[in-house]
Amino acid sequence: MARLASAKTHSFDVFQKLRQALQEELTAVDQIILNQLKNRVALIPELAQHIISAGGKRLRPILTLASSRLCGYQGQHHLSLAACVEFIHTATLLHDDVVDNSQLRRGTSTANTLWGNQASVLVGDFLFSKAFQLMVESGNLEILHILSTAAATIAQGEVLQLMNIHDLSLNQTVYLEVIEAKTAALFAAACEIGGVLANKSKAETTALRNYGINLGILFQLVDDALDYLPSHSEHLGKVTGDDFREGKMTLPVIYALQQADQPERLFWKRTMADSQQEENDLNSAIAILKRHDAIAKTLKLAQNYCDRALGSLELFPNSPWRTIFSELAFYCISRANSPKN
Amino acid sequence: MARLASAKTHSFDVFQKLRQALQEELTAVDQIILNQLKNRVALIPELAQHIISAGGKRLRPILTLASSRLCGYQGQHHLSLAACVEFIHTATLLHDDVVDNSQLRRGTSTANTLWGNQASVLVGDFLFSKAFQLMVESGNLEILHILSTAAATIAQGEVLQLMNIHDLSLNQTVYLEVIEAKTAALFAAACEIGGVLANKSKAETTALRNYGINLGILFQLVDDALDYLPSHSEHLGKVTGDDFREGKMTLPVIYALQQADQPERLFWKRTMADSQQEENDLNSAIAILKRHDAIAKTLKLAQNYCDRALGSLELFPNSPWRTIFSELAFYCISRANSPKN
Repeated sequence: MARLASAKTHSFDVFQKLRQALQEELTAVDQIILNQLKNRVALIPELAQHIISAGGKRLRPILTLASSRLCGYQGQHHLSLAACVEFIHTATLLHDDVVDNSQLRRGTSTANTLWGNQASVLVGDFLFSKAFQLMVESGNLEILHILSTAAATIAQGEVLQLMNIHDLSLNQTVYLEVIEAKTAALFAAACEIGGVLANKSKAETTALRNYGINLGILFQLVDDALDYLPSHSEHLGKVTGDDFREGKMTLPVIYALQQADQPERLFWKRTMADSQQEENDLNSAIAILKRHDAIAKTLKLAQNYCDRALGSLELFPNSPWRTIFSELAFYCISRANSPKN
Repeated sequence: MARLASAKTHSFDVFQKLRQALQEELTAVDQIILNQLKNRVALIPELAQHIISAGGKRLRPILTLASSRLCGYQGQHHLSLAACVEFIHTATLLHDDVVDNSQLRRGTSTANTLWGNQASVLVGDFLFSKAFQLMVESGNLEILHILSTAAATIAQGEVLQLMNIHDLSLNQTVYLEVIEAKTAALFAAACEIGGVLANKSKAETTALRNYGINLGILFQLVDDALDYLPSHSEHLGKVTGDDFREGKMTLPVIYALQQADQPERLFWKRTMADSQQEENDLNSAIAILKRHDAIAKTLKLAQNYCDRALGSLELFPNSPWRTIFSELAFYCISRANSPKN
């Protein structure tokens, strides 16, 4: 964990630097997003802008922009494809919040709370179809294949997650399958398309894809750890304990269950499987996770995926952009320690 | 209306004949659908097959198959594109039933009733992304443009409809805009792609598109009339009066409102705008619609769109497939009179 500790001190600055380096392109991407949302049906721009401007980090479009730069792409298609990636992500968020019945996202009321589930479902569909229109405009069939496959994989991962809710027998293998599908598939596609745009070799686009998969998995592992770190609630703007309240089985709980004694097993059954939760249960859950080092072990696995992400970059010659990709992986790990995750 | 009356006697047989003429291709389309739904996440094939096999007429994929035949297409891409069109339609149905909180569709419990709204939202997303994967496989950018635009138009139409619910001031123009987007856009795309596959001229693909738009509008007009025809409930398998109960403003009510006296206006306000409905209100609504000939006027407008659909076909030389397209339009009109709509 020494590596993790050293990373956390500077990696948030790295992310800010990265945003600055891509500032012009990010502004262009935002402009494409705004143009695509112009619509005579007023609810569409209202609701979509609420979620898109709610302080998202634009991490996924940044991956597309940065991988295009890493690969020396000279055209303009990366801009609309970055917007497309953000639309797929946003559509997923809208539908996720309906499925999870979430009240808050990044400290702001969710769209389903403000406009209702019906509007969130339908505007999500609209964003999803806009994403497809944008990728069709790129005119590149390989990219269309990558992104449409990613979209199907995300949906499949979300259904698998729904099936496993409240299921105490969920193991680490299926959990990793879920997060690879629901989160890492889009990270992977976002990275890969930069290489495809630049006509890079199969080895290079595969390396970018692997970087994205590993980055996505470590990102979700950290996210699932953060849900049980109460001190992060006000910064995250997310109500800590969402996963616990929803009975969503994540790796910290899977680890804790592996070492649970009989009273703990009954605790998880009552709270997670049977959804019978009392006022102090979240604190008890956090105490049990601590007793079994479940958060630290989750973050250790995240560090493993960080190492794999860095390994995927070795194919590329040293360059400022390769360094940025390395530092981005450290940044994603450091969210567990940074006050501004 | 004489034309309508003469049409109804034979047009259902025409639809059966059409299904028989395309039987081999329809079986191939069903096989593609089944293959695409094979998935280790069991809920996906379970839920999707429930809605796909629930007795749908496969009208939209039939349009793609028939327009490919009309245009003399010799390849195989029409099969997976027909499956793609059915997936877009099915995804929309799944999300519609969530938005409308529907209990029954074609006499069968809706997926949201059996598996919950969460599963319906996510499996709908899965079908939608599978549709995009199938269209990408066709490798034809013009077809990708047509279908992705149709998907965005459908979503926009659904949002517009949601915004106008309970709104007594909705006029015929906006109503027609809604049904053109939510229903006719997919009919139009389904027809047009047959011509594009066969490399037909712009004039011909536009004619097919116009046929589809007009067919789709007349189809939805008849659907909206049927919702106030109680005798059709058991055949349709749809609970008559769904639109009324949901406060969904359709053309029969728009017509009735144009001629409403003060008590009727108050009736529509209480039942449709304020959603305060009592036991006998649906019967009262039907009686008011009858008093103002609102159903007959709706069906008369449908006949208008039927004539336009037939006009769009004139560009094509006389052939058995052109005849089938004409008779299909009569079939859609005749649903208002047939016991097997």
